[in-house]
Amino acid sequence: MSAVAFTLHGLGVSSGIAIGRVHLVSHALLEVPHYEIPPERVAEERTRLKEAVDAVRTELRLLRAAADQSAAQQELDAFIDLQILMLDDPMLIDAALERIAANGINAEWALAQQLEELLAAFEAIDDAYLRERRQDVIQTVERLMKELRGLARPMRARHEDWPTIIVAHDLSPADTIGFRGQRIGGFLTDVGSPTSHTAIVARSLKLPAVVGVRHARQLLEDDELVIIDARRGVAIANPPPEVVEEYRLRKAELDLERTRLARLKESATRTLDGTEIQLHANIESPKDLPAVRAVGADGIGLYRTEFLFTERADRPSEAEQFEAYREVVRGMKGKPVTIRTFDLGADKDFDLSDERRAPANPALGLRGIRYCLAEPAFFLTQLRAILRAAACGPVKILLPMVMHASEIDRARQLIAQARSELVAEGVKVPEQIPVGAMIEVPAAAIALPMIARRVDFLSIGTNDLIQYTLAIDRQDDAVAELYDPLHPAVLRLLAGILSFAARIDLPVSLCGELAGDPDYAWLLAALGLREFSMHPERLLEVRQRLLYANLDELAPKAQRLVKLDEPQKIREAFARFNDGAR
Amino acid sequence: MSAVAFTLHGLGVSSGIAIGRVHLVSHALLEVPHYEIPPERVAEERTRLKEAVDAVRTELRLLRAAADQSAAQQELDAFIDLQILMLDDPMLIDAALERIAANGINAEWALAQQLEELLAAFEAIDDAYLRERRQDVIQTVERLMKELRGLARPMRARHEDWPTIIVAHDLSPADTIGFRGQRIGGFLTDVGSPTSHTAIVARSLKLPAVVGVRHARQLLEDDELVIIDARRGVAIANPPPEVVEEYRLRKAELDLERTRLARLKESATRTLDGTEIQLHANIESPKDLPAVRAVGADGIGLYRTEFLFTERADRPSEAEQFEAYREVVRGMKGKPVTIRTFDLGADKDFDLSDERRAPANPALGLRGIRYCLAEPAFFLTQLRAILRAAACGPVKILLPMVMHASEIDRARQLIAQARSELVAEGVKVPEQIPVGAMIEVPAAAIALPMIARRVDFLSIGTNDLIQYTLAIDRQDDAVAELYDPLHPAVLRLLAGILSFAARIDLPVSLCGELAGDPDYAWLLAALGLREFSMHPERLLEVRQRLLYANLDELAPKAQRLVKLDEPQKIREAFARFNDGAR
Repeated sequence: MSAVAFTLHGLGVSSGIAIGRVHLVSHALLEVPHYEIPPERVAEERTRLKEAVDAVRTELRLLRAAADQSAAQQELDAFIDLQILMLDDPMLIDAALERIAANGINAEWALAQQLEELLAAFEAIDDAYLRERRQDVIQTVERLMKELRGLARPMRARHEDWPTIIVAHDLSPADTIGFRGQRIGGFLTDVGSPTSHTAIVARSLKLPAVVGVRHARQLLEDDELVIIDARRGVAIANPPPEVVEEYRLRKAELDLERTRLARLKESATRTLDGTEIQLHANIESPKDLPAVRAVGADGIGLYRTEFLFTERADRPSEAEQFEAYREVVRGMKGKPVTIRTFDLGADKDFDLSDERRAPANPALGLRGIRYCLAEPAFFLTQLRAILRAAACGPVKILLPMVMHASEIDRARQLIAQARSELVAEGVKVPEQIPVGAMIEVPAAAIALPMIARRVDFLSIGTNDLIQYTLAIDRQDDAVAELYDPLHPAVLRLLAGILSFAARIDLPVSLCGELAGDPDYAWLLAALGLREFSMHPERLLEVRQRLLYANLDELAPKAQRLVKLDEPQKIREAFARFNDGAR
Repeated sequence: MSAVAFTLHGLGVSSGIAIGRVHLVSHALLEVPHYEIPPERVAEERTRLKEAVDAVRTELRLLRAAADQSAAQQELDAFIDLQILMLDDPMLIDAALERIAANGINAEWALAQQLEELLAAFEAIDDAYLRERRQDVIQTVERLMKELRGLARPMRARHEDWPTIIVAHDLSPADTIGFRGQRIGGFLTDVGSPTSHTAIVARSLKLPAVVGVRHARQLLEDDELVIIDARRGVAIANPPPEVVEEYRLRKAELDLERTRLARLKESATRTLDGTEIQLHANIESPKDLPAVRAVGADGIGLYRTEFLFTERADRPSEAEQFEAYREVVRGMKGKPVTIRTFDLGADKDFDLSDERRAPANPALGLRGIRYCLAEPAFFLTQLRAILRAAACGPVKILLPMVMHASEIDRARQLIAQARSELVAEGVKVPEQIPVGAMIEVPAAAIALPMIARRVDFLSIGTNDLIQYTLAIDRQDDAVAELYDPLHPAVLRLLAGILSFAARIDLPVSLCGELAGDPDYAWLLAALGLREFSMHPERLLEVRQRLLYANLDELAPKAQRLVKLDEPQKIREAFARFNDGAR
């Protein structure tokens, strides 16, 4: 391989490794040809569009028939059905045919014009369901465009040696229909976040993906060999043979590991010394429940509720929120569900306060509990929905970004108010609901007694806690390498929180990324952590580690470790500490 | 007064209170009239411009002659001379006259066109001196525009009752020429920062000002009564009589206080129990030296060096830096000068790394020591300049944003390298130079032993330390009110740093805003602080407070106070603590 090797960075979703050859997915909507059609050729052009519609319809029906009946496939089938319906919608096809004649333009151009008009109409609609249909229209038109331009031919099975790595601007669930029957290794997309369609698709197909790799489509070429390492969020293009070999080995190990881990899903998490540890899952939406059940999580330790704001401009109603919360509470069948109130602002894509000036440092701005307390009516709506869902199973409320005592006091007042309102309305709500504070602002960790005496439990958010303690934004490439969970200040804070909570017998969970890092499992447990909450994908690996932990032996070592304050010594001690962990 | 009272917020410069009536300064350049001139009237239009030039020249000469000989006035005179020269520049006036004829347009339009062309030419020039001339051209044209439009008449002395409050978009030193002989109370400007021209003018005239009051000119009307409270950074428009009365009283008190304080400038700062305390000054540039001497500061505790980057796009040379540092070292005549290495990035206007993507959270990004270590050649230049200046008097090096041990280790290596280079070149440098760390990232405060054993002194930067500890950006209006130096976490960190430093006998200074807040003077001294560094304007007031402090009595009270962790109790204890302070 003579081409130069290079590494692309993005956000890994669905862990694992894939090695394969690039298949660039063209984006017909990005390159629409525009030309005029003389009157004598209008009829011919209209026929061209009608034929494309027929071809796409046939293709979709074939795909629909071929579908197997797994849950993931059922979801995809719904997309296909919608697209078939869309092809018969006069607002789309008939209107585009009309435009060909009226404006004397080619079919693609006419379709693009009609799409634009439809999207503008969607913009004006104040209805969440209809807004979602927007994507279906776009995808249907995209499919038609490809057919018209001769781009719609199915992927050739050209790579006998390696599976195919799909490289696209973004993927929709519908896009993946065309992959069926192909040997797909993984995905790389230009855009996307952990909650994007591509990410959801990758997870449902259990394929590794790296999203948000800017300019992936420009940098990669068809048929190039590429390695995807979703765990590290990188793609290596044109890897030298020794790197391919290395990754081949790692992949084999991972596959073996997965098989082994799968057997742990029914186990309790009991350490060698007999300590029971709770392993909970962090989730983004009810859609994550299957993954949670698949690993046998003990509950939901962090239900992020911001997903309710994804791809919409208005605020979710109480009814809508109630549905989303209840679905999770019921789905967990009596296991506890900790719902974090909205942590909007900062790194969240959505910002309700667009009339305000964009803050210079959103991470130090109006977010989490600050935002909710600044918008009490909005906050009350969420609290009412949570309280109502709490009638269906054990629910706890978790307040993000808490730092002042008054923030908890005020939030508790609003919870009481929401409760009285509901009781007055005759709605069933539980007598008591535990209220906890996220410990993620350094001030909360340092002034812990003030916070602790106001809540029923704590949840340590290590991502933000480390970020603020070190004054490092990990999303910022320029300083990301300075981020360090083993900084003596971080260890001291973590150890301090855990020992204080143990002393006053206050339940404490840890839901930052550290909870899902197997290398930190022993240390955290040895410092006293008894409830971890993490991405479900990490849970079995952490469980496996903990099964081999002897906390009686590890606890004094951990206390010595966190008293060290020289980075080099900490690193050495940490390596020794994990000796014997597999 | 029937108009509604309202408060405007900005950045206070030059403390004090002013009550007066609004005088809106028009900005001729913002509203240039455009019309065509028929050929037969071109000669007339050219004459109109020539007459305006003559009128402005006469006006400037008169102003020049009237000037008294204070230092501030000498600076202003230089501006006048430059503007007179500009009026004779063929590139400006002759070219504009030419445009009137060639394009058949009015004089203002022609001037505006010519100004644009000149500014474009300036843009292309890579010379700091010439770039500064840019402002002179703009101001000269502005003056001509006003003359042409009949806006140039001097201010009427219309307000017998109150002085005049100048409300402008921004002020240049040249603008203030016209104020001479008027009763000016203070300034309010739409734009500006603590280092803007307006701020410099306000300080040199010792008048209160609030800058960066967005839309001040739109919100205020001529002749409206307005109160400026520069200490709080607010302007109150149309205040009700009782508010005016209140502020009148406060102003009288302030004036009296100033007179009293001025007598303290020769005193040492010795508390009632006989403890000597060092009061140092924070400065931005050598220009601040007179203010430092005026209050008898014991040294420069924080010499911010970022001023070297103001209004320029290139980097200051070693020679330029050396000059700036030496000027301060010599000016302090043997008193110690602590030079902080560049703290570029974040809230600093200037960012060298414009080719990089703008960080989402600059305060958590590449700034301070992080930036300098990422650009070692650039950092070495500064270190060389500091070491050379250190040959002229006692200098210390202060490293900002320190958090990892490796950052100090690396900075010390670079200091050693700079020293060896200079020695090899035969340049005189001191044997030893004390190196200190700013304690402003929570991690540095928490893992203090790791930092302390690597440095010769510490300097607590309370502004950033509080900001990161509370995860609050105080510049962000939406959360500014959550900023709280009395948060138990902040008190605990401060007390911890001071007691640890005392225990290991490491000198520690405090140079954040708290150092200049008289209300915190007793508490900080009682917790063990022996070196305060603050804006020179605050120094005498802090000295006065400290003269009445009995640390033997206060120290145990302070220790009890910082052990409290309920906000209400802290507030009460703090109020009691300051009982007896005047």
